[in-house]
Amino acid sequence: MSSPLPGVQALLFDVFGTVVDWHGSVTKELERVGKQHGIEGDWKEFATTWRRGYLENTRRIAQGGKGPSSVDIMHREILEDILTSEKWKALSDKLTSQARDELNLVWHRLDGWPDSTPGLYNLKKEVIIATLSNGNVRLLVDMAKHADLPWDTIFSAELFGSFKPHSINIARSDLKVYLGAVKHLSLDPQNCAMVAAHVYDLRAAAGVGMRTVYIPRQGEDAGVGEVKSKGEGGDVDVVVQSFEELAKLLAGN
Amino acid sequence: MSSPLPGVQALLFDVFGTVVDWHGSVTKELERVGKQHGIEGDWKEFATTWRRGYLENTRRIAQGGKGPSSVDIMHREILEDILTSEKWKALSDKLTSQARDELNLVWHRLDGWPDSTPGLYNLKKEVIIATLSNGNVRLLVDMAKHADLPWDTIFSAELFGSFKPHSINIARSDLKVYLGAVKHLSLDPQNCAMVAAHVYDLRAAAGVGMRTVYIPRQGEDAGVGEVKSKGEGGDVDVVVQSFEELAKLLAGN
Repeated sequence: MSSPLPGVQALLFDVFGTVVDWHGSVTKELERVGKQHGIEGDWKEFATTWRRGYLENTRRIAQGGKGPSSVDIMHREILEDILTSEKWKALSDKLTSQARDELNLVWHRLDGWPDSTPGLYNLKKEVIIATLSNGNVRLLVDMAKHADLPWDTIFSAELFGSFKPHSINIARSDLKVYLGAVKHLSLDPQNCAMVAAHVYDLRAAAGVGMRTVYIPRQGEDAGVGEVKSKGEGGDVDVVVQSFEELAKLLAGN
Repeated sequence: MSSPLPGVQALLFDVFGTVVDWHGSVTKELERVGKQHGIEGDWKEFATTWRRGYLENTRRIAQGGKGPSSVDIMHREILEDILTSEKWKALSDKLTSQARDELNLVWHRLDGWPDSTPGLYNLKKEVIIATLSNGNVRLLVDMAKHADLPWDTIFSAELFGSFKPHSINIARSDLKVYLGAVKHLSLDPQNCAMVAAHVYDLRAAAGVGMRTVYIPRQGEDAGVGEVKSKGEGGDVDVVVQSFEELAKLLAGN
C-alpha cells in the first residue's frame, strides 16, 4: 500500500482546538473563578465569546489590519472588553486587575485531548513535531509544560510577524507563517504536513504546497460538515481520528 | 543563603561546546570517513580548522558583513574550502558531492557532554530551558533528537537574522539575538540566564541585562584563564561544573 504522506519529515500542528481543548479548559477555569466569588453564569458562552474575539482579531491582522502581535495581549484586551458588558458586571466588580491578569493566563494551561500526549510521544519517534500556532511563544512553552506536549520545537506566528488565516481567502502575509516554518526546517513544503481540526488552516497550508492531515475535534469547525481525504473524494491528504492513529500510519511509511 | 540567580525563569543555552562536544564528535566522524577510504590524517586539526572557519564567518556577519545566514550552508562552504588545500587532497579526491553533503551533517549529530542530558531533564523541571545558538533551527532540532536534549523550545540566531558575537565588542546587530529570545519568552532580561562555556557570550548577554552562568568545558575558551563568579571577584553570576550542579542550585531557589 502506498503511503498517503510520502516523504513527510515534519508535522506542524495547529494547537488551539487541535491539540488542546480550549473550550473545556477555559470553561472549567471560569466556573472555578465564578464559584470563588459566588457568581453564576453561562461560562461556556463566556469562553466562546472570548475565543470569538481572538478569531476576529487574528483574522483582521492577518489581512493587514492593526492590532497586538502577541495573543497574550490580545486575550487580555478581549477579556477587558467582555467584562465591560452589563451581562458580566457581577464578575467584573469582583476581579481586580491582577485577578484579570491571572485569569488571562488560563490560555497557557489548556489541557490536551486524551490522545494528544501519548500520540505526540509516538509521532516524535517517527518525524519532527512542532507547533505552528497563532499563540505566542511563551504561551505555547507554558502549555507544553502544563499538558506534557513533547514538541521538538515551537513555531509561533509571532516569530514571523503575522497570523495564520482564519478564512480560505489567503492574504500574502499569511503565507509568511507557513513558509517561515518550512524554511527553518530546511525542507520543501511537500515534506511537511500541517495537522489541524480546521479545514481553512489546511487549505491555506495546501496553498503553499504542504501536505494536510485533518482531525475532527468536538466543537471545532462548526458547520463545515464531514471532511474527506482525497482518496474519498475530499481535498485533504489524510483524515485521522487521533494522533495515535496518525503515528501508526507514519510508522508504516 | 540567598540565591545567586533570583527570579530566573528561563535558561538560554549556548550549544556548540557548551552542551555538545563538537570537537570530539567531528573528529570521530572524520576518522571514520578517513578509515573508510584508507586515508590517514590529523583529524583533530581538520575539525579545529572547520570550526575556526565558522567562528570567523559568524563574527564577520555579526559585525554587519555578508555571508550565509544558515550555519548549514556556512559549514558546507568551509568544508569545500578546506578540501581544496593540498594537505587534504587525498580525502578530497575520494569524496563525491553527496559524500560531502553527508559529512557536513555531522554537525547535526554531535554528542552531548556526559552531564548534558541528565542535567537538562532536571533543569526542565525547574525552569524553561531553550537553546540560543548560532546553529540553524533544523540543525538544532536534529541534534536534540540525536543527543536526547529535551529543550522546551529552540531559539536560533537564524530566527532573528543575525549571529551572537564572538568578541566582546558588541555590535548593535548582535543584541537582536539575545533580546529576541528574551522578548519571545515574555520576560525581562534579568529573569533569563545565558549558560555558556564562552565568556564572550556571557559578557554580551550581561550587556543586555541577562544573568550569566559559566561552565568550563574541555577545549573551549582556550587562553581565557579561570572564570570566576562575582562572589569570588569575577564578572559572571554563577560558575558550575555540570548541568546537574546547576539544577541542584536552581531547585534550592
